[in-house]
Amino acid sequence: MSAEHRPLPGSDRRWGVWLVGARGSVATTAAVGSAAIPAGRATATGMVTGSAPFAQADLPSLGDVVLGGCDPSGTSLAKRAELLAQGGVFPLALSQALADDLQAIDRRVVPGIAADEAAQHPSAAVARIGDELERFATEHDLDDVVVVNVSSTEAPIADHPAHHDPEALLAAVARDSDVLPPSGLYALAAIRGGHAFVDFTPSSALTVPAILDLATGRVPVAGRDGKTGETLVKTALAPMFADRALHVHSWSGMNLLGGGDGQTLADPVTAASKVESKGDVLGDILGHRPEGPVRIDNVSDLGDWKTAWDLITFEGFLGTRMQMQFTWQGCDSTLAAPLVLDLARLVVAAGRAGRTGPQQWLGYFFKAPLGDGPRRLAEQFAELVDEVGGLAEDVAVGTNP
Amino acid sequence: MSAEHRPLPGSDRRWGVWLVGARGSVATTAAVGSAAIPAGRATATGMVTGSAPFAQADLPSLGDVVLGGCDPSGTSLAKRAELLAQGGVFPLALSQALADDLQAIDRRVVPGIAADEAAQHPSAAVARIGDELERFATEHDLDDVVVVNVSSTEAPIADHPAHHDPEALLAAVARDSDVLPPSGLYALAAIRGGHAFVDFTPSSALTVPAILDLATGRVPVAGRDGKTGETLVKTALAPMFADRALHVHSWSGMNLLGGGDGQTLADPVTAASKVESKGDVLGDILGHRPEGPVRIDNVSDLGDWKTAWDLITFEGFLGTRMQMQFTWQGCDSTLAAPLVLDLARLVVAAGRAGRTGPQQWLGYFFKAPLGDGPRRLAEQFAELVDEVGGLAEDVAVGTNP
Amino acid sequence: MSAEHRPLPGSDRRWGVWLVGARGSVATTAAVGSAAIPAGRATATGMVTGSAPFAQADLPSLGDVVLGGCDPSGTSLAKRAELLAQGGVFPLALSQALADDLQAIDRRVVPGIAADEAAQHPSAAVARIGDELERFATEHDLDDVVVVNVSSTEAPIADHPAHHDPEALLAAVARDSDVLPPSGLYALAAIRGGHAFVDFTPSSALTVPAILDLATGRVPVAGRDGKTGETLVKTALAPMFADRALHVHSWSGMNLLGGGDGQTLADPVTAASKVESKGDVLGDILGHRPEGPVRIDNVSDLGDWKTAWDLITFEGFLGTRMQMQFTWQGCDSTLAAPLVLDLARLVVAAGRAGRTGPQQWLGYFFKAPLGDGPRRLAEQFAELVDEVGGLAEDVAVGTNP
Amino acid sequence: MSAEHRPLPGSDRRWGVWLVGARGSVATTAAVGSAAIPAGRATATGMVTGSAPFAQADLPSLGDVVLGGCDPSGTSLAKRAELLAQGGVFPLALSQALADDLQAIDRRVVPGIAADEAAQHPSAAVARIGDELERFATEHDLDDVVVVNVSSTEAPIADHPAHHDPEALLAAVARDSDVLPPSGLYALAAIRGGHAFVDFTPSSALTVPAILDLATGRVPVAGRDGKTGETLVKTALAPMFADRALHVHSWSGMNLLGGGDGQTLADPVTAASKVESKGDVLGDILGHRPEGPVRIDNVSDLGDWKTAWDLITFEGFLGTRMQMQFTWQGCDSTLAAPLVLDLARLVVAAGRAGRTGPQQWLGYFFKAPLGDGPRRLAEQFAELVDEVGGLAEDVAVGTNP
Repeated sequence: MSAEHRPLPGSDRRWGVWLVGARGSVATTAAVGSAAIPAGRATATGMVTGSAPFAQADLPSLGDVVLGGCDPSGTSLAKRAELLAQGGVFPLALSQALADDLQAIDRRVVPGIAADEAAQHPSAAVARIGDELERFATEHDLDDVVVVNVSSTEAPIADHPAHHDPEALLAAVARDSDVLPPSGLYALAAIRGGHAFVDFTPSSALTVPAILDLATGRVPVAGRDGKTGETLVKTALAPMFADRALHVHSWSGMNLLGGGDGQTLADPVTAASKVESKGDVLGDILGHRPEGPVRIDNVSDLGDWKTAWDLITFEGFLGTRMQMQFTWQGCDSTLAAPLVLDLARLVVAAGRAGRTGPQQWLGYFFKAPLGDGPRRLAEQFAELVDEVGGLAEDVAVGTNP
Repeated sequence: MSAEHRPLPGSDRRWGVWLVGARGSVATTAAVGSAAIPAGRATATGMVTGSAPFAQADLPSLGDVVLGGCDPSGTSLAKRAELLAQGGVFPLALSQALADDLQAIDRRVVPGIAADEAAQHPSAAVARIGDELERFATEHDLDDVVVVNVSSTEAPIADHPAHHDPEALLAAVARDSDVLPPSGLYALAAIRGGHAFVDFTPSSALTVPAILDLATGRVPVAGRDGKTGETLVKTALAPMFADRALHVHSWSGMNLLGGGDGQTLADPVTAASKVESKGDVLGDILGHRPEGPVRIDNVSDLGDWKTAWDLITFEGFLGTRMQMQFTWQGCDSTLAAPLVLDLARLVVAAGRAGRTGPQQWLGYFFKAPLGDGPRRLAEQFAELVDEVGGLAEDVAVGTNP
Repeated sequence: MSAEHRPLPGSDRRWGVWLVGARGSVATTAAVGSAAIPAGRATATGMVTGSAPFAQADLPSLGDVVLGGCDPSGTSLAKRAELLAQGGVFPLALSQALADDLQAIDRRVVPGIAADEAAQHPSAAVARIGDELERFATEHDLDDVVVVNVSSTEAPIADHPAHHDPEALLAAVARDSDVLPPSGLYALAAIRGGHAFVDFTPSSALTVPAILDLATGRVPVAGRDGKTGETLVKTALAPMFADRALHVHSWSGMNLLGGGDGQTLADPVTAASKVESKGDVLGDILGHRPEGPVRIDNVSDLGDWKTAWDLITFEGFLGTRMQMQFTWQGCDSTLAAPLVLDLARLVVAAGRAGRTGPQQWLGYFFKAPLGDGPRRLAEQFAELVDEVGGLAEDVAVGTNP
Repeated sequence: MSAEHRPLPGSDRRWGVWLVGARGSVATTAAVGSAAIPAGRATATGMVTGSAPFAQADLPSLGDVVLGGCDPSGTSLAKRAELLAQGGVFPLALSQALADDLQAIDRRVVPGIAADEAAQHPSAAVARIGDELERFATEHDLDDVVVVNVSSTEAPIADHPAHHDPEALLAAVARDSDVLPPSGLYALAAIRGGHAFVDFTPSSALTVPAILDLATGRVPVAGRDGKTGETLVKTALAPMFADRALHVHSWSGMNLLGGGDGQTLADPVTAASKVESKGDVLGDILGHRPEGPVRIDNVSDLGDWKTAWDLITFEGFLGTRMQMQFTWQGCDSTLAAPLVLDLARLVVAAGRAGRTGPQQWLGYFFKAPLGDGPRRLAEQFAELVDEVGGLAEDVAVGTNP
């Protein structure tokens, strides 16, 4: 174990994380961790903000957090945790010991916005979610709330004029036009209520320029699509080829996974969102886009354990052709959940330091980061550490209005 | 192709590279490349100094270089090139087209120091190599010469008091004490003659503190052990695990290769040098040394094509165990040769800018870098780019005495 | 080298192989081999019929074979061979030394049936091909001719009543109904002319029951789809799991290849033929069909070098889950070409022994074998060796009318 | 699940398995399975004799078996089972539900022969083990007892004249000469007492010709070294290369494992036994011995989960070089334990059918099978199925005296 059993440090103001998809695998694992770590039942292994470079930053503590959110599923968090434990995601004994905590979170989960409601009555949906967020904050006396989307991947959306003008977007939603998918409506409700918003999925909310404009001056937003496996490795390895002047001709990837994610991504339309958000990173780092497919396929037997295989062909000195392969066998929920907690802490800290709009410096966590920051993993990490240092200073000197 | 066919830019002073092991695979491939690139027969793919970040640095040009060196082998460079081409290292047509250039280099290759000469008559050996270097520089009117060791790996040496005192070392060699292996004697001859020295092998020359002391104030030295395969990937990947707070429990590696290197490393004693220089890097980056063997085995059928397989087991959030594997199928000579040319250019430029002693900022190129610079690949590259910028400035403002 | 340089033994009657797709990669490689082996320039490595168990069978000799065929491409065999050699399929020197032989074969290649001709004038197409075969046999004084289809994969065809009745099929073709793809018309022309037919592709000719009926009593036919890579390994490995009572839950495969085949299979419709013919084998051997995708993707950089990665998840004693992965890096043409020569020899021998109709015992060579013979590789090989012994006996005792 | 929950069929005579190493991982897993299957708590997945081809053989039933044995370890079976369950070898709930059964077996475990006892007092050791076996059979009213060695691998032994003469061997042991390692003494005690003996390890007992001679006419013996992972795959794959006339140049393997086996094999001397028993199989199948190392290394983090990586380089038609790699991630105990139960059933059935001496037809189960039977996996399986059919007939017609 690389860290001691203790709550992660941070200022002692109470804060909340409101999860869209609060009974999914990632949310359930995050819930187990958020209860286990302050209770001394687990360490912060896998949490970036639990490591040395963040020790001096006054990030909000897991000991002060309250989890809530929405999910259409009727399966309780305790039941979901049991299923995940049976799939090897974490020890069964851990989730059993935390049964009361999970039940408490469960009581703070509401149904959320259905797809047809988003299409037909978006105005009412945004208002209702706004009320839910308000009640969540008030009831639990929370100084800050961050909304984090960890629900299933949505299909890509078509461009619309209202996406490019904040006023037009608000007006369109007000007259119940079908211009935003559910993720966009959650983002709108969060921003209007003064709550930060994080999109941990490849959904479209933060691809809408008007939503980013609305956030600017109000709340920080961060996204898109948590970087937990194949793309993480790509952004660590591609700079090696680029800097050594080894010319990558092809980079092909096959991603096999089961669980809910595997089923969702077996649908070619939603898979398109995912594949798209995975694809650009190589072009950005290498300076050219190598050929080669990126496949995502559902293998239910794998459950939450994603196996990715990548084949890279490259050319070196005097035209010699060489190859590299890697296989990544990771547990998706276990890789994603700590990043959700990291992002929640960081975005709340950013809000406290007065930051608003797209937080480009959080690109380290995402497959398709907002803004035009670095795509190389090491540079993203350096930028993250730098900015977190800056946040603490800004708070200290009263930059935060 | 990522680069145009043209000589790499650089100031037009004539310079020389004197290769210890001048008829080995790496030297032969470097020779082919050094002739092919200025002739427009190959691009600089695989040469770090041929890429964009180095375009403004006034590095010595391949168009002005003269190659020479020593090797006990009687096989001509042209014959070696033919054998390498048959093994797929570069096109046969290329080496055939450059036959005259290779023959010219061949005429500048002398036998070098034998192991028993190093043990029994080190004083004479150093003097003779000094003379050879002098003649090489004079005959070809070279402003600068760099000696690069690309010979077979030597066995590790035992510590000796004379290794810690420059005067004592010179005195011991003068009285023909057996205190240095051949690599050390080459380094001594180079430094005495005012020539830079690069150890591209895991041999011991630059592990001797007195040799580093002798270089300081006289010439730049750089080493040790070119980073071309498994260790290159390790230094790219290990930071990913460290920064994500994923605890690496084991990292095991199997390296299979043929060729001369495979045969040399099949000897457990010399393999020890290699395995040792590969091993420390993980401990430095991860903050702990994961368990797991590093094996190097000779498979003659693979020839110059090294295949490395690594298995990494790691722990994430809530104790979940995960794995990553990679297979690296690279051509050793083709990966090493451009780095030899890179290092020669950079060390000569460093000498012109007045730098002497261990050049820690060249750690990017080595498995076991001199000094306590960064071990993470991305940080090493950033330091390299920074320093190369500094060299140019130092030359411009006349720092160079 | 596992075999001496000499023509493969066999009776000395002259025979011919007429290749559909005679200038493709497989045909070109087969042509090079068919010339190189009798000339003592290559051994029979990779040819099944060149190994010990076939030494006593009196198979037709490569020294007596004449190659011809059809192909729409205007690129000469010598040029194709040069391109393949540059891609590493065989040594350039070999194809250069055989330039005259390749040119001679090239002169025996005619254009063949175009897709629209097959759809609009099938009757004339069959007649013309029949004439070509006749001329090929007569001009070169061939006792036996076998037609082998090694052209690009066709899309699957829809069922038609005429496919189930030989008379109806002949009548439909006679009145120019579009009931057969080109592969079917070649099969028809071969059978009518008294020539054996082998389908080495996943095309549809031998899925038409009426064609099998027409062959019965006339000529031997064999197919479908040469087993050269991933499926070969599957039929070797799957019995291991089945016999050990290890329950295979999933078997996923990703096939990456370039070359003409890669381009053809990038089209989802023709890929369907290929994926279909690869898929059934596991169900047959395991007794259930495990989940998991089979993907075929075009990566032009790989050229003829197919890389397949398979992930197998299985359950053992007391429910424990385990995994196996393999990567196959094979040169498709080099694996297929010797099997084409094997099949040609075996089918001609079968014809000489009086065998007609579907030759189920050749299932060893195919992904989707005709008939309901064994699917396990070892059983297929045992059946092959048995039957070849039988052929020789049948000839000896005069079974052949 | 591939089989229903029910005791495996078989005649209802009570029988015993006496395990040397009765508290090791393999024995513990076998114990859990032997209790779980008759109780309907697990299926026979992974047991060869539980599959269809053995359904008609009247093998002794797991419902009638009694387990006992010897082990120096003081850790109880229940505790060992708990540790294995925590390592993921089987569900914890399963071992907990069977606690009483495990405790009952535990009471039948005695200390066994220590290494120095084997060296100094072999005569007394054999006598004591003989008495233990006698008591085991009598107390539990067992018609048949089979001794199965699943203890740690012993170092190879030096040849001795007494190994080649049964009388001399018995005399040497009688006068307390140090001629046999513990495995040999167990074999001697078993044979003298009229009990079958199986060596599931690479130890030396059954390499001693005099021991095989002593068994002949008395009891069946089978061995050596259960084939559970890399070698299993080798014997499935190597015939594919051989029959396709693809010339294997190198076959290299790296085996990483933890647990007790990993520790034992980290010792180069005992590893030698293991590597030796793994090595010959390729030469037998391919007709030549390809180059390439076989490495076994201890990685404690892997526990019982062995990861093997193999690289195969081979040559095909016209000299083209190709490669195959595989990674096997198996749980050693879970792969070995069902084979121990299979072998116990089969050897007892062989004894009932009157078979004595080395049982070559059980080669399917072993890395280094006794006798000169087939080494190809498919042929071994065919021989196994054949012989089991023969056993049943022999019993039916009263061959058994």
